[in-house]
Amino acid sequence: MSLRSETLELTCDLISRPSVTPEDAGCQELLIGRLEKLGFKIERLPFEEVTNFWARRGTEGPLFCFAGHTDVVPSGPAEQWTHPPFEPTEVEGYLYGRGAADMKGSIAAFMTALERFIANHPEHEGSISLLITSDEEGPFVNGTTRVIDHLEARNEKIDWCIVGEPSSTDKVGDVIKNGRRGSLSGTLKVRGIQGHVAYPHLVRNPIHEAAPALAELSSTTWDQGNDFFPPTSFQISNIHAGTGATNVVPGEVEVAFNFRFSTETTADELKQRVCDILTRHGLDWDIDWILSGNPFLTSAGSLVDASREAIRAVTGNETELSTSGGTSDGRFIAPTGAQVVELGPVNATIHKIDERVRIADLDTLSAVYENILARLLVKS
Amino acid sequence: MSLRSETLELTCDLISRPSVTPEDAGCQELLIGRLEKLGFKIERLPFEEVTNFWARRGTEGPLFCFAGHTDVVPSGPAEQWTHPPFEPTEVEGYLYGRGAADMKGSIAAFMTALERFIANHPEHEGSISLLITSDEEGPFVNGTTRVIDHLEARNEKIDWCIVGEPSSTDKVGDVIKNGRRGSLSGTLKVRGIQGHVAYPHLVRNPIHEAAPALAELSSTTWDQGNDFFPPTSFQISNIHAGTGATNVVPGEVEVAFNFRFSTETTADELKQRVCDILTRHGLDWDIDWILSGNPFLTSAGSLVDASREAIRAVTGNETELSTSGGTSDGRFIAPTGAQVVELGPVNATIHKIDERVRIADLDTLSAVYENILARLLVKS
Repeated sequence: MSLRSETLELTCDLISRPSVTPEDAGCQELLIGRLEKLGFKIERLPFEEVTNFWARRGTEGPLFCFAGHTDVVPSGPAEQWTHPPFEPTEVEGYLYGRGAADMKGSIAAFMTALERFIANHPEHEGSISLLITSDEEGPFVNGTTRVIDHLEARNEKIDWCIVGEPSSTDKVGDVIKNGRRGSLSGTLKVRGIQGHVAYPHLVRNPIHEAAPALAELSSTTWDQGNDFFPPTSFQISNIHAGTGATNVVPGEVEVAFNFRFSTETTADELKQRVCDILTRHGLDWDIDWILSGNPFLTSAGSLVDASREAIRAVTGNETELSTSGGTSDGRFIAPTGAQVVELGPVNATIHKIDERVRIADLDTLSAVYENILARLLVKS
Repeated sequence: MSLRSETLELTCDLISRPSVTPEDAGCQELLIGRLEKLGFKIERLPFEEVTNFWARRGTEGPLFCFAGHTDVVPSGPAEQWTHPPFEPTEVEGYLYGRGAADMKGSIAAFMTALERFIANHPEHEGSISLLITSDEEGPFVNGTTRVIDHLEARNEKIDWCIVGEPSSTDKVGDVIKNGRRGSLSGTLKVRGIQGHVAYPHLVRNPIHEAAPALAELSSTTWDQGNDFFPPTSFQISNIHAGTGATNVVPGEVEVAFNFRFSTETTADELKQRVCDILTRHGLDWDIDWILSGNPFLTSAGSLVDASREAIRAVTGNETELSTSGGTSDGRFIAPTGAQVVELGPVNATIHKIDERVRIADLDTLSAVYENILARLLVKS
């Protein structure tokens, strides 16, 4: 065993490749070379400018999958970094570099976990797979969703999926994400009749007409949430009307809003309830809707159990289940019926200047991943 | 008597002087020359770039005043006019030119009325005055309001004031304005706490918090108006919040609004009621107020009576009293205690391309003005 851990070595190797979305910069070929040595069958699945691959070892079920992304968000102004963002730098127990936490560290930790696990259990149960994309931080059009379409077309089903997103708050594994809220956006236009403020009988003020409806939308309880989700929330992000002239009533007001919604409702139900409120207020309106993702939940079962037990076994710590925060590629995998859990390092510095990961956490995470594989794919 | 009327001649002479605010282009000196011949005492009262004068004939009360402006709004693109805007042109019974209706025609009509009246009644009762400015279409800072201050400082009080604004709708004198609504504007800012839409517990959405208050302001009955004023109206002209990012709750919403208010309320009452509503809704808010003018009303009395009777005597038509439309310099004169009425030609083309006045209306208007002078200043 070298003095520097295998996981640290591989994380550094990946960080030094500046794979800003959708660039991959050779990250995936590095992984593919090591996976082929472990007996994985590789399918390179590039779509448009996005590099993806699917790797599988074994033909039987159940099918375990590690889902991750080799792309990173831009560094921002490199001169604001304490160390160059694409030169991995170890200082006082931390490894600095873009992608250290999101999520090149997770990928390296899983790779070394896999290498140890297969060395110890070459005849494991079921199958192991990796779904790796270079589009998770981008428009998520030609990445995971296209690979999933490809698998669905041949009825290849993932049973358990660990997404390597940095889920932890203070210590590795203190939080895992077992679901995500849905995200539904709308751009509402309410029309009135433009005119001069001095002639109120000739105008229909769309701001006046919209205000009570917006008040009702803002104060509506959409659901109570449940054990896993907070209540569905509605937020207006933008409202604009008027040309700047203070003596003219505008002809239209535009309102942008977003729902983060729980599994207690659906996008269609929310749309219908919004439409009912607007119509009941007698407005002349239309809405452009964008559904960014439905909510998903992996509430109980073998994957959540294995994850919590592995974390307890390796770290001695208990794990909180959470569905908070933004979206991830888990939203594309869960609808196929897979159990999906996000488990990765501490997320405090992701998408920021001086992104970093505690070096010791990389080996801890690798040990947790290995322990999960053993719980799921080795007969007791 | 010449074939072309004196009033038409003088109107043409004034139109041919391109007196776009605050330029006077010699209009006032033309009037002053004629007034001096009638025995008026002239005070030239220039303030900053604005030309004004006060002319008075007689030292006794009551004091009649004709208030008018020699300035005109810009012509806009001259090539869009059928005839050059500053070349008075007579076509098919109409006189075309910038200022024909607003209000060089009125000034000419009053001047010729005055010449006939004084020829017939050199020893009239009371006094006659003219308050002429070149700033009515501009910022109204250095025009009528400064002249009024000058008169007030020496306690010189106008009893009756005819403002030559084009008040008529179809025929000369079918409408006179015996008051104007007040105008009070505000720019409201409501503050919240900015944040990401995915973390609703960390934000305070100022749009959500403002919506019920805006709904209440929009639906409030401020007063019922009265016999002379429509109910006070509230209109929001502009509302803006959000940077365009659809996942960020903004920290502030800005709302511009305007009251047109009747004599049944006051600016201070309206401010207090708005403040009460905002405070009751628990908002973190402030408002910048601008009071453009208080309402004024000349409900009954000798000036309204003389005007209606003169119009009936000259034209045979009845007159509607109105307080509708925008503001005029009457708002600066009425607070001194004067009775104020706006009476002038048909306003259909004012501030527009091809502004014009019916030529016959100029003499009709002059006859009406002369008749009013006789009713007020000649013992029966």
